[in-house]
Amino acid sequence: MPRVTERALSLPDLERLGAPVFEMRIRVYYEDTDAGGIVYYANWLRYFERARTDWLRTLGAEHRDLDARHGLLFVVRDLAVDYRAPARLDDELIVDVRVLEARRASMRLAQAARPAAGGDPLVVSSVRVAAIDRATGRATGLPKWLVERCQPMDGSR
Amino acid sequence: MPRVTERALSLPDLERLGAPVFEMRIRVYYEDTDAGGIVYYANWLRYFERARTDWLRTLGAEHRDLDARHGLLFVVRDLAVDYRAPARLDDELIVDVRVLEARRASMRLAQAARPAAGGDPLVVSSVRVAAIDRATGRATGLPKWLVERCQPMDGSR
Amino acid sequence: MPRVTERALSLPDLERLGAPVFEMRIRVYYEDTDAGGIVYYANWLRYFERARTDWLRTLGAEHRDLDARHGLLFVVRDLAVDYRAPARLDDELIVDVRVLEARRASMRLAQAARPAAGGDPLVVSSVRVAAIDRATGRATGLPKWLVERCQPMDGSR
Amino acid sequence: MPRVTERALSLPDLERLGAPVFEMRIRVYYEDTDAGGIVYYANWLRYFERARTDWLRTLGAEHRDLDARHGLLFVVRDLAVDYRAPARLDDELIVDVRVLEARRASMRLAQAARPAAGGDPLVVSSVRVAAIDRATGRATGLPKWLVERCQPMDGSR
Repeated sequence: MPRVTERALSLPDLERLGAPVFEMRIRVYYEDTDAGGIVYYANWLRYFERARTDWLRTLGAEHRDLDARHGLLFVVRDLAVDYRAPARLDDELIVDVRVLEARRASMRLAQAARPAAGGDPLVVSSVRVAAIDRATGRATGLPKWLVERCQPMDGSR
Repeated sequence: MPRVTERALSLPDLERLGAPVFEMRIRVYYEDTDAGGIVYYANWLRYFERARTDWLRTLGAEHRDLDARHGLLFVVRDLAVDYRAPARLDDELIVDVRVLEARRASMRLAQAARPAAGGDPLVVSSVRVAAIDRATGRATGLPKWLVERCQPMDGSR
Repeated sequence: MPRVTERALSLPDLERLGAPVFEMRIRVYYEDTDAGGIVYYANWLRYFERARTDWLRTLGAEHRDLDARHGLLFVVRDLAVDYRAPARLDDELIVDVRVLEARRASMRLAQAARPAAGGDPLVVSSVRVAAIDRATGRATGLPKWLVERCQPMDGSR
Repeated sequence: MPRVTERALSLPDLERLGAPVFEMRIRVYYEDTDAGGIVYYANWLRYFERARTDWLRTLGAEHRDLDARHGLLFVVRDLAVDYRAPARLDDELIVDVRVLEARRASMRLAQAARPAAGGDPLVVSSVRVAAIDRATGRATGLPKWLVERCQPMDGSR
């Protein structure tokens, strides 16, 4: 029997969050667009993951390394996305990462994409990331040193 | 200045919603998986859209037709996804559609994917879909006849 | 130093090849298209692989099974594609498989996609598939029983 | 009746071609890989197109601009790909462009991807690109000024 408890995923208020801990430029190519002439809705998640991955790399946490040494895979537990305005072919975007919460079990990030030329965010998301053991598929804590490096900065940054 | 109001996207309690209005079988191919050995998180959104598209087709609303005749494009306004368990290469899934709300401005759907062999939902989502005018990019109402055909079965919500 | 010998990949003359050993219906969704309004060129390769995978499944060769039992992965060694006409959103296609050659080391297939409603092939390809050992990444023969089941039918089918 | 004449697509000998006219760094993310742990074969075509697109941009030919001003879309007419070695998650690649031939009707490019850290090409391709009129879908010449800027450096081929 399907047993899914109703619950809410909240989208962050970016204004209160202070500056991102990471930003990345991403160009829109044909592969990203669809016949509507805009970036396909699922492909924003690819952009968000690129930014998360490169951010984690700056912290010393490279996916392949964590897998090879610890058998650890990052997985997305849940997400919420607000599509506010479209992006089009050849657009250049800035995709960022903000830390909302970092714990052993999981961390929650806010991520937004805005035009590189300036302007309001086009797409805003909240993503909860956890780690699993590749062999068993079960939840395993995030590495302690990584959690420490991911602490939210209370707007100090 | 980024101006994004905090707000919550709720995930539905599938048990209360009754049977789906549409179900579709989807097979997992290499293209859908990633190096973690599971379906890539963004690709579940591709599955959900296939089910929405085929469901709308059964109601007489084919994307290309709506575009050609009315210059109308469907867009996703927001979504929430709960990733409960992974799917793997060669798995066969059933992806469904439930109508939470259908109005002129937009409709909200609950969509879940479960193993075709039976079992709990692997991924559950809530998606708000609207329509825009292709020429202007502005919101335009969904066709009235379509909204009427999309009403939730029992009006319980 | 880059050392790539010039060589030719030939596209098959479908007329001489007789009927396909496998055919599969595939619908074009938004995810498959690009801002040009047509199926994105790389996505035809996804269609071709779906057809190869489902064909191999009918022969008793399921990817996940071959991986779990033999540590064997299929890989594409080379391919040639002729894009003759585009497909668009909501189109229904028939994607097929013809065996050009089946040996222990590799097999070569001809694959075409045509409109389900009838008409000439839109895209024609030739693909050479081999198997590698997952652990070492080295070439390993295709299973003997599979090679036997893949023999070209000399136009008898 | 399917009418496809057999013909050969040749892969270039990179050694004879001299230096590329364009190079681009590309990182491998989860989205690019599959359950085999390597870059999915179709996704190399996405990499090649990113390089073509950025190269054309340096020549003053931006896709969106050509579409808006001339109703002109680039399409791939045919391609051949030789997959020599795999790439994996987190790898950094250099993807290049070499001009084999540039004419009004179409241009043929050689493109290769190699590890950024050095080494032989992993994947080598030959791609013929043409332009169509968006409204009619019919072949239209490439812009004359663009063909002039795309000439192979030494005219040796």
